[in-house]
Amino acid sequence: MKAVNLKEKFDKIHEHWSPRLLGELNSQAVKIAKLKGEFIWHHHENEDEMFFVIDGSMTIKLADQDIDLKQNEFFIIPRGVEHKPVAKDEVLVMMFEPMDTVNTGNVESNITIKNVQKI
Amino acid sequence: MKAVNLKEKFDKIHEHWSPRLLGELNSQAVKIAKLKGEFIWHHHENEDEMFFVIDGSMTIKLADQDIDLKQNEFFIIPRGVEHKPVAKDEVLVMMFEPMDTVNTGNVESNITIKNVQKI
Repeated sequence: MKAVNLKEKFDKIHEHWSPRLLGELNSQAVKIAKLKGEFIWHHHENEDEMFFVIDGSMTIKLADQDIDLKQNEFFIIPRGVEHKPVAKDEVLVMMFEPMDTVNTGNVESNITIKNVQKI
Repeated sequence: MKAVNLKEKFDKIHEHWSPRLLGELNSQAVKIAKLKGEFIWHHHENEDEMFFVIDGSMTIKLADQDIDLKQNEFFIIPRGVEHKPVAKDEVLVMMFEPMDTVNTGNVESNITIKNVQKI
């Protein structure tokens, strides 16, 4: 058993909006991703989702407000709430969510990733 | 709804080994704590527990190895595994575990905290 170093893991990611699985506990996934640009509007029917900013800044757009996040800030998006992550510049995020959460939630598109790679 | 800033939350904590609740998602707790010194040996019967170091460094002692953790490193302690957190100097940690997890696990003592304060 060993510690997981986030910097080493982020160095292995060369695409945006492509989450990787780092660990699992209590049926929950610990994922990381590099984000840049605009994602799509979506929601997760049965899963709350946490975005924790490790480096950089981003905005989680909700229907009626923008949640701005910078390093060492997090936000929990309650299940069912429409949201759209946006990052002007590249941001490194850690996500907590149930193991079966799909990145685009209720919307299936060409950016949907159903099998998240473990690194 | 608003972002949670870890620095602001840590500034409200003035004791060691006293976890605070920052949020809940999918029946899981997001907690933070300031640790310094040696905790007790214990395990959690039915809960995996994640320690993520926000600032500083610490060691999670296991029966047969030491897991050293520094900033931006995490470790998931599987349920049932005996462990003892130790921090030579103060360390700031985020923890992720089921809502009903008690800090001293199977050991009840004068440092057991059953009702974690939300901040």
